[in-house]
Formats: sequence, C-alpha cells, structure tokens
Amino acid sequence: MKNAISPIRKDNYPEWYLQVIKNAGLAENSPVRGCMVIKPWGYSIWENIQRILDRRFKDTGHENAYFPLLIPLSFLQKEAEHVEGFAKECAVVTHHRLEADGEGRLLPSGKLDEPLIVRPTSETIIGEAYSRWVQSYRDLPILINQWANVMRWEMRPRLFLRTSEFLWQEGHTAHASQDEAETETRKMLDIYEEFVRDYLAIPVVKGEKTPEERFPGAVNTYTVEAMMQDLKALQMGTSHFLGQNFSKSSGIRFKNMAGEDEYAWTTSWGVSTRLIGGMIMSHSDDDGLVLPPMIAPKQVVLLPLIRKSEERAKIMDYCRGIMQLLSEKTFGGEKVRVFIDDRDIGGGDRFWSNVKRGVPVRLEVGSREMDAGTITVGTRDKPAGQRTVEPKDKVIDEIADVLSNIHSSLFNRAKELREHNTHTISTVDELKKYFSASGKSGFAICYSDPYEHSASREAILKELKVSARCIPFGMQDEEGECIFTGKKVRTKVIYARAY
Amino acid sequence: MKNAISPIRKDNYPEWYLQVIKNAGLAENSPVRGCMVIKPWGYSIWENIQRILDRRFKDTGHENAYFPLLIPLSFLQKEAEHVEGFAKECAVVTHHRLEADGEGRLLPSGKLDEPLIVRPTSETIIGEAYSRWVQSYRDLPILINQWANVMRWEMRPRLFLRTSEFLWQEGHTAHASQDEAETETRKMLDIYEEFVRDYLAIPVVKGEKTPEERFPGAVNTYTVEAMMQDLKALQMGTSHFLGQNFSKSSGIRFKNMAGEDEYAWTTSWGVSTRLIGGMIMSHSDDDGLVLPPMIAPKQVVLLPLIRKSEERAKIMDYCRGIMQLLSEKTFGGEKVRVFIDDRDIGGGDRFWSNVKRGVPVRLEVGSREMDAGTITVGTRDKPAGQRTVEPKDKVIDEIADVLSNIHSSLFNRAKELREHNTHTISTVDELKKYFSASGKSGFAICYSDPYEHSASREAILKELKVSARCIPFGMQDEEGECIFTGKKVRTKVIYARAY
Repeated sequence: MKNAISPIRKDNYPEWYLQVIKNAGLAENSPVRGCMVIKPWGYSIWENIQRILDRRFKDTGHENAYFPLLIPLSFLQKEAEHVEGFAKECAVVTHHRLEADGEGRLLPSGKLDEPLIVRPTSETIIGEAYSRWVQSYRDLPILINQWANVMRWEMRPRLFLRTSEFLWQEGHTAHASQDEAETETRKMLDIYEEFVRDYLAIPVVKGEKTPEERFPGAVNTYTVEAMMQDLKALQMGTSHFLGQNFSKSSGIRFKNMAGEDEYAWTTSWGVSTRLIGGMIMSHSDDDGLVLPPMIAPKQVVLLPLIRKSEERAKIMDYCRGIMQLLSEKTFGGEKVRVFIDDRDIGGGDRFWSNVKRGVPVRLEVGSREMDAGTITVGTRDKPAGQRTVEPKDKVIDEIADVLSNIHSSLFNRAKELREHNTHTISTVDELKKYFSASGKSGFAICYSDPYEHSASREAILKELKVSARCIPFGMQDEEGECIFTGKKVRTKVIYARAY
Repeated sequence: MKNAISPIRKDNYPEWYLQVIKNAGLAENSPVRGCMVIKPWGYSIWENIQRILDRRFKDTGHENAYFPLLIPLSFLQKEAEHVEGFAKECAVVTHHRLEADGEGRLLPSGKLDEPLIVRPTSETIIGEAYSRWVQSYRDLPILINQWANVMRWEMRPRLFLRTSEFLWQEGHTAHASQDEAETETRKMLDIYEEFVRDYLAIPVVKGEKTPEERFPGAVNTYTVEAMMQDLKALQMGTSHFLGQNFSKSSGIRFKNMAGEDEYAWTTSWGVSTRLIGGMIMSHSDDDGLVLPPMIAPKQVVLLPLIRKSEERAKIMDYCRGIMQLLSEKTFGGEKVRVFIDDRDIGGGDRFWSNVKRGVPVRLEVGSREMDAGTITVGTRDKPAGQRTVEPKDKVIDEIADVLSNIHSSLFNRAKELREHNTHTISTVDELKKYFSASGKSGFAICYSDPYEHSASREAILKELKVSARCIPFGMQDEEGECIFTGKKVRTKVIYARAY
C-alpha cells in the first residue's frame, strides 16, 4: 500500500519531516529567511500548549508580564558570557525610519545612537526592571513569565526546530536565597517533564547540562531531552539557575532581614514552538502527522459518507446528533473537541486529509452505519486502513478511553524506542562503533567527568558529531571509570547526535 | 480630604494619567525609548481583553495564525500609500550579528542584502502568504487573526496610548466578493463596539473615517471613537475595507465559479493595548484607577482588619470562607474573581493600594463585622470614604448585582459626559469659539463634505488643533449646509481634539 507521505521515514527522514508539516498544513517557510508562517492548524496546537502551561505556571504562583522587544546593545554586554553566546545570531535595529534617496529608492534613515537588538532572550532587559522593583527582601520573590517572540538568526533554519524567529515563554524569577532559586529551577523542570509526558506523550530524560552546553551566563542549566524516531536527541525545554551572575550585572540588590545588602538569586526557564517539532518527530508516521489527543486542536472528526445527494440531510442530521453527544463528554478535564468534516471534496480526499493532519479519532458514518446503529472507527495510532465497526453508543460512551488509549500507545511506543536505543558504553572504541557511519545510534550512557575539560574528549565528540545531552538525574550513584580518561568518577553523561 | 493621586485631573490631566498608571502598577517606561514594560496587573487586564475578544473572533469563524515579525522592505513598498504612511516610523533591521572591532567594542556586522522592517502592521507579509494559499473561490474566505507585537517609532510616546512597541490583534480576511468583505468589515466593527461597551463600560460613536484619516492603503476605514474625561477623542479600534488594493499589490487572485481570474477583496481590523489607555482615561478618578468589573483582574478584594495578632487565625479563616462562597458565584458568565489581601503592610496602606489599583469591590472584615455577621462594603465607582455595612449573606448573594451596578454606573457616567459635551455646530465662528483657548471642548457635529478636499477647512482644523474623528453612522439623513463651504450636503462629521 502506498503511503500518504513521500518520502517515507526510512528513505529520507529530514525531507519526510518537512512533508509531514506541509501535508498537515502546520507551517511554512516565509520569504524572510529563517522565519516561518505558523498556519491555523499549527498555531492552534501552540494555543493548546500555551493554555495548559499557562495554567500550570499560574497554579505555581507565577504572573505574566511583557517586556520590550528591543534590547540596547549595552544591556546585552553587561554579562560577558551572555553576549558572547548570542553575538553571532543577533538581528540588529540600526535606524528608525525610511527615506527616499535621489532616485526615489527608500533607504534606512534616522540612525540610532545605540544599536538595538531584537531580543534573543530577555535576561538583561528584565534584569534592569527587577533592579528597580527590588529594594527589600519583602519585594522577593518575583515570579514572572512572558509569552513572546524571540529572534536568533539561523544560518540553517528548519521549521519549528530551528527558526530565526520563534515563539516561546520565558520565566524569569528572582529570590532572596540560593536555595529558593534552585528549588524554583527544579520545580519548573518538573513542570516541563510532566507537560511533555502527559500532553505531548513523549518520555524525557531529565538532567543537568554539561558546562559546554549551559545557557550563556548560567551557573547551571537543567534540561529535558527526548529521543526522536531517527534516534537523535531533541532538547525539549531548559531551566537555568543563574546564581547571582545576572543580578550582579543588572544590579538586582536588596536589603535582607538583617538590613544588609545582598544580590538576588535568579532563574530563567523556557519552552518554545520547538516542542511542536519534537511532537511531530516523536509520533508521526509515513501517512503524516500523528497528534497526541491531549494537544490536538480537534480530537475527533466525523466523516459523513454521502453517496447520494438525497441522503445528505439525513446523514448530516445524524452526524450532528453524534457530535452533540460527543462534545458533552470530557477528556483530560476538558470537553472533547469534535467536528464534522463535510467539505465539498471527494470522500477519499477527506479521509486522507484527516489522516495527514493527525486527528486522533476518525468516525465514518454512512447510510449503512446509520441503519445498523454503528460507526466505523479509526484511530491515528494504528495504520489508516485498520478500522473497526462499533456500536454507536459504545463509541460515544467510551470516547475518553479511546483517546486515553491513543495517548498511552504513543507514549509507550516512544518509550520503547528510547529504551531499545539507549546503551551503556564502556570504552571509546565502543563509543566510536556505536556512532558508526550508518548514522543510526541512540543515547550512549558513559562514565565521564563533564566538569573537567578534556581536549581529547572534545575531539572525539566532534569527530563523531555527537554532543553531551545531559548528566541524567538518578544515575549518579556508583563509581566507574571515565571512558575518556580512565579516571574514577561518579558521573554519567548521555552522548547523542542532536537537533 | 486629600486625594490618593497627585496631581488631580483638573490640575494636570496628562500627569494625572501617568500617576494613575504608576500608582496602580500597570506599566512603566523602559530604557528603550518609547517601549513600555507592562507589569503583571496591567498585563492581566490585557489577558482578559485577549480572552474575551479571542472567543468572539472564534465564534464568528476566525482562526489564529502567526506571521513573521520582520517584513522585507520591498514588500512594504508594494502598496504605495501604505509605505508612505509608515516610512517615518519604521524600526529597520540592517545587520544579523555583532562583531568586535579592534578595541573590543561590539558593532553591527553581517549586513543584510535587503533591510527588514519590524512589522508596523502585517498586510503586506500576510498578503504574500494569501497569494500562495488562494487559487480558487473554494479557498475563500480566509478568516485569520493574529495576536502580536508591532512597532511604530514614536517621537512623543505615552504609556498605552502611543508607544513605539505595542501589543495588538490584527485580523486579515480575504473574500470572493466586495459585498462579503464589506459585511466582514462592519461585523468586526460591531464586535469592537460591543466589547468596548459591554466589557470596558465605554460608549462609542461608530462611523467612517474621512479620507485623510484612513488607514494607508484602505478604501474605507471604520472606527469606534470614545470621549475621554478631558473631552478629547480616542480612537478605540478600527476596521478597514481594503477593496482590491492589497490583493492587487500582493497578487491574491482566484478563479471564480465561472472559471475567470479575479482579485480577492480584503479587510483588516485591529485593537491594541491602547484600549487600556482608553479605559484608564474614561473611568479613573483622583484616587487612581477605576476598573470596569468585566475586565478587572480581580473583581473583589477581601481586606481582613486584624487589630491584635491573636485575632489573625480566626479572621483569616472567616475571610477564606467568604472567599470560597464568592468564588462560586458567577458574573458575566465567569466565576467571580476574588482574593484576600493580607499583605504584611499597614491596614491603611492595604486599603489605599486596592483603591489605587481599581479593584471594583472592597470588603472589609474585622472582629466587629465577624461578630455582627456583616461586611463593610465599598465600591470603586463611589468615593473611597463612602462605605456601607451590609449583612454578610446579602453581600455574597448579591455580588453579581453589585458588580453589574458598578458597570452600569461607569458606563452611564461616561455616556452622560459625552452627551453633555457633544454639540451641533452650524458655523465656522461657532466652531472656533467651541474649540477656544480654554482647551475644554468636546465633540462638534457639523455638516461638512469630507470627501471633497478643502484647503480652508484643513487650515481651520489645523489652527484649532482639531481633527475629523468620523462620519458617524445614523446621522446622515437630512440635508444641511457645509459649515466650511456653504454647499448643501447630507454628511455630518464629528470634529474633536484627539489622542
């Protein structure tokens, strides 16, 4: 049987990824290099992500606010590592108007005294505000989140995964003690893990980034890492403990309870539209997008099968009745999102269009089903051709279970893939073999000392095109030999090829 | 009695406005000229505006999407009037990285082949996408909205009213017929009117903009205009019928049912964070912000009056009980938003802080109230000192009525102000007298022919610092004499000073 997406995964994974996006109508490249247009179907996945995370942030005491898009160059320079990390990918505003030259061509005019950077992240501009807001320990903690667009100029953009402009949330908090800031950093990482697991149906490894992979300016960066179907790693979200680095460079100082001056302890944490890329690469198949039900813009599509025009009114009425009953059911604490697709296109096209855009449950209803009191059911976690005929009432009554099973089936499949492709590696030779020319590999767990610089380790990783994904939590108990240096260490690191 | 805000309205209205914002903690100027920081209390008003409008847009068949922040200069130039309208206020990105010079100073580097404009509005970049999405009449209409930040460089910025960066929504629709596009334009104007009336408690005049005041490139611009307490006009939202201007410049062409090529008919419509400025200037008083209940982040504040520390636990428990009961009540289709303010600051400071941030209902509860089964109630539409003691159960049962009455009282007050300050003017002399040196005036309704250019009219308006606000709907029936030319016309225009 021919697949709906060409090429299929095993023939050309990167191109398959782009074709899934195109066929689902999620997003497209814009004429502005590296910037994407997020189309309604893709944007409504983002709206769901926003709604759910926003609720979690507010439940944990955070408020939203909004800070300027443009950051003065001098602000970015206040933290040396920070500006170094972002200097190569900054969109720079240098003029504030356009003026016609002698030949009527419009040119930039009104040169600014100081260049302004389109925010790549907002630590420095938010730090400036906090430095004014915080005077006493009574002003702390500040727990603020911002939903915003950011810009990091990409030379090799890729829809959702790596775009010059992307949408994200960035939490920025300031605390009176190191302990409280560290707790916040870990709490937000846990929220990311739960969200990715419970809504995107993706298992993650939680851990600490190695020094080389830390956010520029952070004392510690924590990450949730997932494995895609091509066995590469994708960083799904990060949470940074910034220590006093940014509070010192921004001057966020407060009088503590003893009346002494102290610098605040700050954190930042973010997830972006990249999550959508991770969701696509985790679950989609050779017939297109597969949406985890919790995040799907629509969870159930009703496909009326109208063979003669005189049947139309009757079948449509019948479908509307089913829709009504289904939309009163709840799944995951929200009403089931159901719609009828009666677009005036061929039945086959309508069927495949809903497969390709990943609607979790397809219910086909024609005169045969109507007469028999049944519905032909297909779920997106199974091959498109695999359908079962079920009693109508059963389908309606059990819709939440069906959706829940799809979620579990997607999660378990992703988890099995990861487990099958995670290996403990004990020598550099093994590591080289593991990341051999075939390109297929996975996660390599190795004893390694990530805190000590090793030129040979860096050279080996570079040669293999592999990077340290994280120092995973909960694996740092026994002692072993660092595969690069032979030194006794207690730290394990996951190495992988990554997006 | 001293007022909480200094200066008061009659002494210095512009400075009073800024002090209301500052004292309520709504927003502040940022170090980036013309850009504001929207603080949590201000941002949560915007979140309410977003939530309510977003629901209305979706109920009327619109979907959200996201288009690039940066627009190539050549795109902006496609529509001649459009680029002329925005050229003087464009933030221009000219470089895509930073590089250190010989002395280690970071300078813009990586010059772009073509300058990119930070979107002042998105007709041209969205038009390009639509030109690819639309081939046949079956692809129409396209009904898309975008929530975004935009940039229009302001030489004289003013928080919320006129900032270089602001947040807004911009709807962009494309239709197969002129009629359908015009209907859409008016439908969205109606939604704005209803929203401003029913949620912000502000009455508006709906009408058409005169040619000089149209959106650059539009065939027709419709507006909702409100009168502020200083009697100036504020444009609260606009809806544009763009005809085929932008579809011609962007190439949005489709095959109609007869198989012929046609250009689509497009519209655009938007409201912005400026609505918050209008809300502040419509209702606030000399004690600070007054929030219309439908849009207030919190509608009810419970103020525990704790005189001795041994009372604390008992009074707090009692307040939590009241909060629980209140938060189960609904107002305007949503649960009542209630909170306890037990910040560790003086009782007087807590009281005034909630007055200044505009919480609609204040409920004071101390041991006296607890013993008597009463609550001391103050509502923000009345002077802060004016409080009544009510039975507790009555307050809880009737909370929705109390909130509803505040809404009506604010709306009616604003409406009366407008009615008292709207006058029919029959001669130029009268007009000059009306907009005399005192600076106080209002709306002047005059017979005038807005479609015919008149140099003398323009000179008079300029001298008086007055502009045409709109050609109001529903007033264009009888014939009269244009006050500027004496010509018989059927059109009336509202002239006013404006923000």
